Amino acid sequence: MQTAAQPLRQPEPQTARLNAPLHVAVVGANGAVGAAMIACLERRGLPVASLRLFASDRSAGRQIVFRGQPVQVRPLSDDAFEGIDLALFAASSQIARRYAPQAVRQGAVVIDNSAAFRMDPDTPLVVPEVNGEQAFGHAGVIANPNCCAAIAVMALWPLHVANPVRRVIAATYQAASGAGAEAMDELWDSTEAYIHGRPFRPRVMAHPYAFNLFSHDSPVDPDTGANEEETKVVQSLRSLMGEPDLRIGVTCVRAPVLRAHSIALNVEFERPMSPDQALALLERAPGLRIVNDAAGNHFPMPSEASGRDEVLVGRVRRDPSDPTGCSLALFVAGDQLLKGAALNAIQIAERLIAE
Amino acid sequence: MQTAAQPLRQPEPQTARLNAPLHVAVVGANGAVGAAMIACLERRGLPVASLRLFASDRSAGRQIVFRGQPVQVRPLSDDAFEGIDLALFAASSQIARRYAPQAVRQGAVVIDNSAAFRMDPDTPLVVPEVNGEQAFGHAGVIANPNCCAAIAVMALWPLHVANPVRRVIAATYQAASGAGAEAMDELWDSTEAYIHGRPFRPRVMAHPYAFNLFSHDSPVDPDTGANEEETKVVQSLRSLMGEPDLRIGVTCVRAPVLRAHSIALNVEFERPMSPDQALALLERAPGLRIVNDAAGNHFPMPSEASGRDEVLVGRVRRDPSDPTGCSLALFVAGDQLLKGAALNAIQIAERLIAE
Repeated sequence: MQTAAQPLRQPEPQTARLNAPLHVAVVGANGAVGAAMIACLERRGLPVASLRLFASDRSAGRQIVFRGQPVQVRPLSDDAFEGIDLALFAASSQIARRYAPQAVRQGAVVIDNSAAFRMDPDTPLVVPEVNGEQAFGHAGVIANPNCCAAIAVMALWPLHVANPVRRVIAATYQAASGAGAEAMDELWDSTEAYIHGRPFRPRVMAHPYAFNLFSHDSPVDPDTGANEEETKVVQSLRSLMGEPDLRIGVTCVRAPVLRAHSIALNVEFERPMSPDQALALLERAPGLRIVNDAAGNHFPMPSEASGRDEVLVGRVRRDPSDPTGCSLALFVAGDQLLKGAALNAIQIAERLIAE
Repeated sequence: MQTAAQPLRQPEPQTARLNAPLHVAVVGANGAVGAAMIACLERRGLPVASLRLFASDRSAGRQIVFRGQPVQVRPLSDDAFEGIDLALFAASSQIARRYAPQAVRQGAVVIDNSAAFRMDPDTPLVVPEVNGEQAFGHAGVIANPNCCAAIAVMALWPLHVANPVRRVIAATYQAASGAGAEAMDELWDSTEAYIHGRPFRPRVMAHPYAFNLFSHDSPVDPDTGANEEETKVVQSLRSLMGEPDLRIGVTCVRAPVLRAHSIALNVEFERPMSPDQALALLERAPGLRIVNDAAGNHFPMPSEASGRDEVLVGRVRRDPSDPTGCSLALFVAGDQLLKGAALNAIQIAERLIAE
């Protein structure tokens, strides 16, 4: 379990919004999510007046090009956030707990991709398409949800609004990117070594990654048997959907895929729901793309979700194991670095600016 | 749906058993499963008096070494099975429907790895650890089950005997080998091309396979939305467990793994079952190996299941989405070419010889 986060600034409605142009900081700029945040800021045309990039001492010093200009990556320090309006955190929970409250005290709104504040009652956990209005209730920090929850909720929420979800059974196929750029490198390097018959010693993962998959690389609770990722998925999904007791059984698995998560979902609703009804709801939902071509055997897959803002959803069908007709099966795939992390954070910022 | 198979020989109890030493034929000797069958025959020391190898015209002509001697692979013909006691079929359903009845008429017992006879009422579908005694009720042909069902049932059956299974929700992570040696080559070659930045045009799969996964490559029923593999899993599991109405919801996915299938299982039992009770039952069950080290985050994975006869089972935990305590989650991994195909066929033959 996490230790309690430091108390944040009390809510001040007049500071809840962001006034453009923005002085922006990215913490963890050298990581996979940090790099994706910088790319999203540029690609989506956010009104950035200045950009300050931070990383650990170890990886500081690099230059990253933003809008054609090199920006030096600096080591994080106590006064890093003076003059910053928006601080995007793409670092560990430890870094977020230590520096996010400082950033808030120095006047920034923090959007944090770590788990540090996700369960904090003063911190809204937001996916804009689901509960975007909650972003305005922040007390300085807004939490980005667990990446699998962010991707799954995109399909669950439009269905839940029409017919309440009662139970979810999920199995994930999670990409290396969720464990950071080093894990992506390890998947690549170990696969290259495997193909060339060279030995490879894992540096990041506990198990061989080339052509292999394994239970998620987060600590397992000895009492419940759940790993931390599974607990995060449950907590984030319940929070996002406003259903603190939603029954969720999830198995999180790391698959040899670079940057898009896939999830098999079996969903039980309060009332019967047909696949056609579900598809009609999903088609109207923002941020989703239906990939459901049975004749062509073309459904959501990581290769097509990678680099794409939308979450792919398909394989919508009745779950034949539920004779009541209240259960459907579906399959989603979403870019872990985009909707699972960086894009969602930038979308939260856009919401705070736009309104 | 399959067309009805040709009628088989009526049961003749005196011919149900195999009398050693055996004249053995392998049909599909150049395929991944055929090669594994030949290797299992040798490794497990079956009493083989002679070995005849068959393949399609296109791939016949090769020599395969068995017990140090080269054996020529011949094209399949109508009189191929004269003098054969045991014919192991590792070919398509079409080949099995055409040639298995001939092999039976020529006096052989057929063990068929295809789906051709799995639903035939005169053909026992057998996993020796589960329903081995049914092998003796054959009318010439014994069916090897669907590979995912063979692997999953190894863990489901010992639990079912103690506490009947009422519902199974499964998501699979299936290896390339299930689609044959060409698919294994395609995974390998496309990954090598990807790493070297070379284009690769899929030859076997409909979608890119390198660092990707996709819904199983079998036709999708436009009415139910299930693909053929999912239907086979349900049919084989129900048949093996003797529960024709067992409620099963399964999602079959092809993962970028070479030769071991993994399956996430959520299982509802008639009565509450604790993880410790389940583990005690699984530990005593034949053909399973428990891999359930929570502290070391070490659970079943394809890299350790590959090349191993036992099916790995672990991650045994309560399914928190079922408040009755009647549901458990578990994870299995098994070699698709061994317990999922060739080994199971050889074990059936061993059972017919031994008794």
